[in-house]
Amino acid sequence: MSAAVDVARLETALPARCPALVVAFSGGLDSTVLLHLAAQGQRPVRAVHVHHGLQPAADDWAAHCRATALGLGVGFEQLNVRPDHRDEGQEGGARDARYRALAAGLDHHEAVLTAHNADDQLETLLYRFLRGTGPDGLAGIAPLRPLGRGWLVRPLLDVSRDQLAAYAARHALDWVEDPSNASLDIDRNYLRHRVIPVMKARWPGAAAAAGRLADHARGQRGVIAEWLGEGRGPLCLADWRARTGPARRLMLREWIRAGGQPLPGQKRLEAGIHALADAAADRGPVLAWPGGQVRRHGGWLYRLPAALPAIPPSQRLPAGARGAGWGGLGVAAGLPAAGPLWLRGLYPGERLALAGRPTKPAREVLREHGVVPWWRDRLPVLVDEHDTCLAVAGLGPTREGQARWPAGGVQSFCWRPHDAAAGADWAWLTATGQIVPDGSFC
Amino acid sequence: MSAAVDVARLETALPARCPALVVAFSGGLDSTVLLHLAAQGQRPVRAVHVHHGLQPAADDWAAHCRATALGLGVGFEQLNVRPDHRDEGQEGGARDARYRALAAGLDHHEAVLTAHNADDQLETLLYRFLRGTGPDGLAGIAPLRPLGRGWLVRPLLDVSRDQLAAYAARHALDWVEDPSNASLDIDRNYLRHRVIPVMKARWPGAAAAAGRLADHARGQRGVIAEWLGEGRGPLCLADWRARTGPARRLMLREWIRAGGQPLPGQKRLEAGIHALADAAADRGPVLAWPGGQVRRHGGWLYRLPAALPAIPPSQRLPAGARGAGWGGLGVAAGLPAAGPLWLRGLYPGERLALAGRPTKPAREVLREHGVVPWWRDRLPVLVDEHDTCLAVAGLGPTREGQARWPAGGVQSFCWRPHDAAAGADWAWLTATGQIVPDGSFC
Repeated sequence: MSAAVDVARLETALPARCPALVVAFSGGLDSTVLLHLAAQGQRPVRAVHVHHGLQPAADDWAAHCRATALGLGVGFEQLNVRPDHRDEGQEGGARDARYRALAAGLDHHEAVLTAHNADDQLETLLYRFLRGTGPDGLAGIAPLRPLGRGWLVRPLLDVSRDQLAAYAARHALDWVEDPSNASLDIDRNYLRHRVIPVMKARWPGAAAAAGRLADHARGQRGVIAEWLGEGRGPLCLADWRARTGPARRLMLREWIRAGGQPLPGQKRLEAGIHALADAAADRGPVLAWPGGQVRRHGGWLYRLPAALPAIPPSQRLPAGARGAGWGGLGVAAGLPAAGPLWLRGLYPGERLALAGRPTKPAREVLREHGVVPWWRDRLPVLVDEHDTCLAVAGLGPTREGQARWPAGGVQSFCWRPHDAAAGADWAWLTATGQIVPDGSFC
Repeated sequence: MSAAVDVARLETALPARCPALVVAFSGGLDSTVLLHLAAQGQRPVRAVHVHHGLQPAADDWAAHCRATALGLGVGFEQLNVRPDHRDEGQEGGARDARYRALAAGLDHHEAVLTAHNADDQLETLLYRFLRGTGPDGLAGIAPLRPLGRGWLVRPLLDVSRDQLAAYAARHALDWVEDPSNASLDIDRNYLRHRVIPVMKARWPGAAAAAGRLADHARGQRGVIAEWLGEGRGPLCLADWRARTGPARRLMLREWIRAGGQPLPGQKRLEAGIHALADAAADRGPVLAWPGGQVRRHGGWLYRLPAALPAIPPSQRLPAGARGAGWGGLGVAAGLPAAGPLWLRGLYPGERLALAGRPTKPAREVLREHGVVPWWRDRLPVLVDEHDTCLAVAGLGPTREGQARWPAGGVQSFCWRPHDAAAGADWAWLTATGQIVPDGSFC
């Protein structure tokens, strides 16, 4: 908090390589100071004003922002954003839309600068504290993080609002007041106007303390992530079960988070941990919540989407195609060029014989090859115009397939599921991630 | 917070084996409810009232407490405690003295019960937050921890103060109000009366959220401790340096904490980490702070007391002694029974020859044997009435010593430093912890 509010502060906050700065410029006190500072540096600066259309005076603000930017001799751009209200409050929706719009306009290594200050950090931590958070949530607003093709930087994060006001007065800056900042209906304003002044009267260093706590919590989160690894792929059950209770919980949470899924609630998580860890070896316990599911199978845990994707209808292959997508589930490659051919899923109770092997229920064949249960319904087979099964993706030709193409026309018919199917481990067909067909690894 | 206030709650909070309960009984609302609950259980209960003599009305409270305990049919004991004001405020000193007194009176596996409630937890977390804390401090009040030969248990830690008041009203309980609870000069009361009501008006679940955060933070702290190991002995430099910055910081802090020393301040820690990690191989960097020091030597970090103990004066050995303490630094053993003999430290520039080896500066001999630098001045030698050096602790006889006792009278003259010398790694003489003299390991 003691550091000066000057252009040197900007330089230390920026990543090493940073060809240009984009200042998120609302026209309020904080971002006016930030823009004024940025304009004193050596790098090209453009002010970007996000126009939400949420406030009656929004058009006037945009005009004020344009004039201010021109006055400082920096570029100006207006982004019109329609917030998405579907799953968050108006505040949250507007914020997400704003960052998406800023990210989209960012060139390689460019940095978006926002004017979050030490009092914002204090409010954020207190807000999370009061609504309920874990130690991770106390990492608060990050001083630097990747955004789009560049960076998001908060160079004023340890500057107090009073310091910013003093700077603005010293330089006779002009800014607009957002009337919604006064409304106590907004939780953050209630904290700002009702709670924090009473705290600061006794503990004037509260914002500095919050800043240190956030740094601490961010560091600790990084250390834990380092310890747990990157969370890629299924989690080894034996490794996970070897930990004590709190470590299991933390490890599972971090692994779910690393997969990009929202976390389950506390109670569901606890019950799920119990089931995943302690269910008998012949069971397939599941931790399911609205944002996803974790399934245990054969010594591994898998992160899957809450609802498994539907099996696509059968699909005729274009003549001569050597590969084909199949209804958003994945891509088949190594198809024989001769046709007409179709891709389809297995029928209930369907039986087949891989080349040189006895006839069996198809699902049993997949099980023997280590295919995880949820893929046994979804792995495509290649059929001819009589609906005769010629090959199974990744497992090679059937007896009929080999008779049709004795030279090995479907030896390399393999299958790569789309990663994009919303579960981080959706693309794993077996515990080692791949199906090894006869001789060919794909 | 939803669980009922009843005797079953006590049972679930207690460790499995717990022959008797000691209720810390101030006479206030919370501990009166706790004692009333405990008296309904099957185990023997005694109420212990700690009499600080800090308040004018303390004698009246003690009388009230005695009468209440007798009325409930449980034992009563009064502990008169004089708080130690030396290094903490009156509040902190009184608390420490209270727990020491409670611990001293505890028999094996017995549990001290205190009446801390969910609002106390909220106050504790907020207080730490405002004064400055790391994620660890947010572990707050522990529901269960070892105390003396038994346990310290807080069975009401997720019960709100309102629930306790309702219980007291329902059972027509009688309690005393501590007038100091109203004084806004005390930080905790300021929080309770000025800050928290404004918060709860908007976030009624604040205390429950604080409780969950504390559980979370406690779990995370346990996981990190598990990861870092028990922190015994010097820290391997290569292992520590292999980590990223935040992990180095956390690891060093946890290791210092595990050694029982107070932590250095943030800035000093950062500068020290830099020096310890990056100083050239031939340097001996030190992280020093009022509570201790960390020294780097030969690929290891050592936790030492802030001021190294003085070298004791020379000391005549009692006739026939085979071992002797030496001025609080440690214990020499395996002394020859023949005398008169003395223990003393090395003189500046003193030279000696171990048996069968050339004459050299004594400190060089110790260096060659891997003795850490700060022990080279402090390792005792055994001398005769002419002040001739006969043996060096742990390194064996000198040429003169072997001539005096050709049969090996000082072969096993070894040295065990006192652990109690205030630095966790003080007792390590070499990086492997022990000096191996010719043939004998001690």
